[in-house]
Amino acid sequence: MAVNLAAPSPDSLLPVAGIRLATASAGIKKPGRKDVVVIEMTEGSHCAAVYTQNAFCAAPVLLAKQHQQSSASRYLLINSGNANAGTGEAGMQAAKDCCQAVADAAGVNVSTVLPFSTGVIGQPLPVDKITAVVPEACASLAENNWFSAAHAIMTTDTIAKARSVQLELDGKTVTLTGMSKGSGMIRPDMATMLAYVATDAAVSQAVLTTMLRKAMSQSFNRITVDGDTSTNDACVLMASGQAGNSEISNISSEDGARLLNALTDLCRYLAQAVVRDGEGATKFIAISVSEGESQEECRMVAYTIAHSPLVKTALFASDPNWGRILAAVGRSGIHELDLSGVSIFLGDVCIVDQGQPAASYSEAQGQKVMDGAEIAIKVQLGRGDAEDQVWTCDFSYDYVKINAEYRT
Amino acid sequence: MAVNLAAPSPDSLLPVAGIRLATASAGIKKPGRKDVVVIEMTEGSHCAAVYTQNAFCAAPVLLAKQHQQSSASRYLLINSGNANAGTGEAGMQAAKDCCQAVADAAGVNVSTVLPFSTGVIGQPLPVDKITAVVPEACASLAENNWFSAAHAIMTTDTIAKARSVQLELDGKTVTLTGMSKGSGMIRPDMATMLAYVATDAAVSQAVLTTMLRKAMSQSFNRITVDGDTSTNDACVLMASGQAGNSEISNISSEDGARLLNALTDLCRYLAQAVVRDGEGATKFIAISVSEGESQEECRMVAYTIAHSPLVKTALFASDPNWGRILAAVGRSGIHELDLSGVSIFLGDVCIVDQGQPAASYSEAQGQKVMDGAEIAIKVQLGRGDAEDQVWTCDFSYDYVKINAEYRT
Repeated sequence: MAVNLAAPSPDSLLPVAGIRLATASAGIKKPGRKDVVVIEMTEGSHCAAVYTQNAFCAAPVLLAKQHQQSSASRYLLINSGNANAGTGEAGMQAAKDCCQAVADAAGVNVSTVLPFSTGVIGQPLPVDKITAVVPEACASLAENNWFSAAHAIMTTDTIAKARSVQLELDGKTVTLTGMSKGSGMIRPDMATMLAYVATDAAVSQAVLTTMLRKAMSQSFNRITVDGDTSTNDACVLMASGQAGNSEISNISSEDGARLLNALTDLCRYLAQAVVRDGEGATKFIAISVSEGESQEECRMVAYTIAHSPLVKTALFASDPNWGRILAAVGRSGIHELDLSGVSIFLGDVCIVDQGQPAASYSEAQGQKVMDGAEIAIKVQLGRGDAEDQVWTCDFSYDYVKINAEYRT
Repeated sequence: MAVNLAAPSPDSLLPVAGIRLATASAGIKKPGRKDVVVIEMTEGSHCAAVYTQNAFCAAPVLLAKQHQQSSASRYLLINSGNANAGTGEAGMQAAKDCCQAVADAAGVNVSTVLPFSTGVIGQPLPVDKITAVVPEACASLAENNWFSAAHAIMTTDTIAKARSVQLELDGKTVTLTGMSKGSGMIRPDMATMLAYVATDAAVSQAVLTTMLRKAMSQSFNRITVDGDTSTNDACVLMASGQAGNSEISNISSEDGARLLNALTDLCRYLAQAVVRDGEGATKFIAISVSEGESQEECRMVAYTIAHSPLVKTALFASDPNWGRILAAVGRSGIHELDLSGVSIFLGDVCIVDQGQPAASYSEAQGQKVMDGAEIAIKVQLGRGDAEDQVWTCDFSYDYVKINAEYRT
């Protein structure tokens, strides 16, 4: 189902020195499927995280934020199949109990463990099932378990999403490996569903936090499947410092810029992979809006197009019904939009030229663009220099089917 | 397909003295289907209108606004099957030519004619087909043509939407008859798709304008099917003054209040009829949000729920997946929402009680509510006295089918 997205091969996912992972089957998802991941960061690692801005954020999100503030994080505990969201005080206790199991098995303080859950909202978390497999998982931690972990965090995902990149920093080979999951309820507001990226580069805590924010703003915070921001979104960036480079303490340094660049590319790949595997997706859509007064208004226009059910169903049908794009631009809420400055393109084909139907446009040209699996929609607002872009997918029968039958 | 919505019987639609209508088949829609309506207001009538706030509003909307400002309106010319939107300067000329045909046939100035179009966006309006049938239409105007007119303005509507009400004012029987159309691209921002309401009551122009605004805010401006605001939305209120009551020049007078009440009820019926006939709709959903700091924030929460594809597909599946409602409330963007004050109900069943899962809730209770064709979702924000409500429908396979195949 996923649009132009290949599963990673086990060998393509490189171990990151100082980061060990383990997976287990707790029986939350279907029997035999992996649904628990433990990630260990070696002592001295730094860790940054961003979380959902949904006011109803899940118990594990609340607890992870608390733990992160009080201690240097050493362990991540992730379960799939149950979001532990909308579960009230019982859910908070469940998250604590799960963290405690890791703390007991690893011999660390519970506040060094960050919990993450993804799956159905509003069901009690099966704590006993999770705590039962934690000791086994903690005993089998290894650096080469990214492939298994990328599968274990999946829910409605049809394909695992993970990638590694390497670069030279300070004469040392630095590795970044990351994985993401998510397919529906995707419109990250601060981070995506769940994403974990690790590097062995030495990076100061302050720079790591800034790098994560910057990379997010050009990747996970620019995707949408259905406009629904999850209660459980989180993205974690870990740096073990084992690569041997001298610690990056200035993001504007040459090494800082190069690492940020590599991180942004990796995050963009992982974020776009979520869209390519969007629920029911048959097309991958890149929407770029330029010549705006501000980046915010460009983003507003892009998201209005990306969320329009009429645009998304036309994309599914490969129908060059550009009137729906035009209507979406028109309702996007831009203050005093002067239509005579607006131009709209499907791929490289101009459909609206300075507010007028493009004289050169033919339906055949539009059809050719729409027949592709990757479609670019470009809007020029003609009122400034700002720009922004978002990535989304189309809206198919299968989106309805997947979400109508999710719990049955 | 429409949810609990019966077609009006011809006899139930009462003529309004001083308002004559005619329909014709211009061949814009399928051969033989009526697609043109002319409405004549007797001399001395008053007329108020509200239009879409989409920046890309269609040529007829632009022209209707111009004409309305320059002259007292006497004629409405409506065509279905083609929206004359996204058609640039040629579209504006087309709208003028159509109005001129009515002016010629009726012997009035062109600026007394208001044009309205609904249908596919971005196709040239077939002016010649329309002007060819205008003389015949103008020759067959009659007060008892509401039933035919309600059918002629339909596009993807599966059922005609119209109703009459009567009340006594000033010892006289006053009639209100109205019709609406719309099924997709429905999230009126100022008015709905197309709606026309006429009364024979005598009402001053100023009061008529205010009445329309007030009635809209409790009807057409509170519905959504897919969140897409059309380029062509318009709602027109006509008052012929033929009923013999003394002219209402104060909306707060007893007669003014009673007429506004009847108008609001009629508009709410016509607006809800649009939702009940929403594209692919199988359920009618009333979402009310109370205890907000402001009406605006209540409306924001209600629309966030109403537009959530995940909520809408769960409603289609009759799945009491209330976690999706909770997630929508959480992401609705309310400033500093304190969850401990939030309660959520499905029908009369409490699912979230002061921020915690309701201890009394059982899946069976939720299932019973969701099995109905009419579902009420109620949210209490626990932070003020404001409230608001919106009406919407679910999101089905047929919504995708209708919109993927609209032009094919």
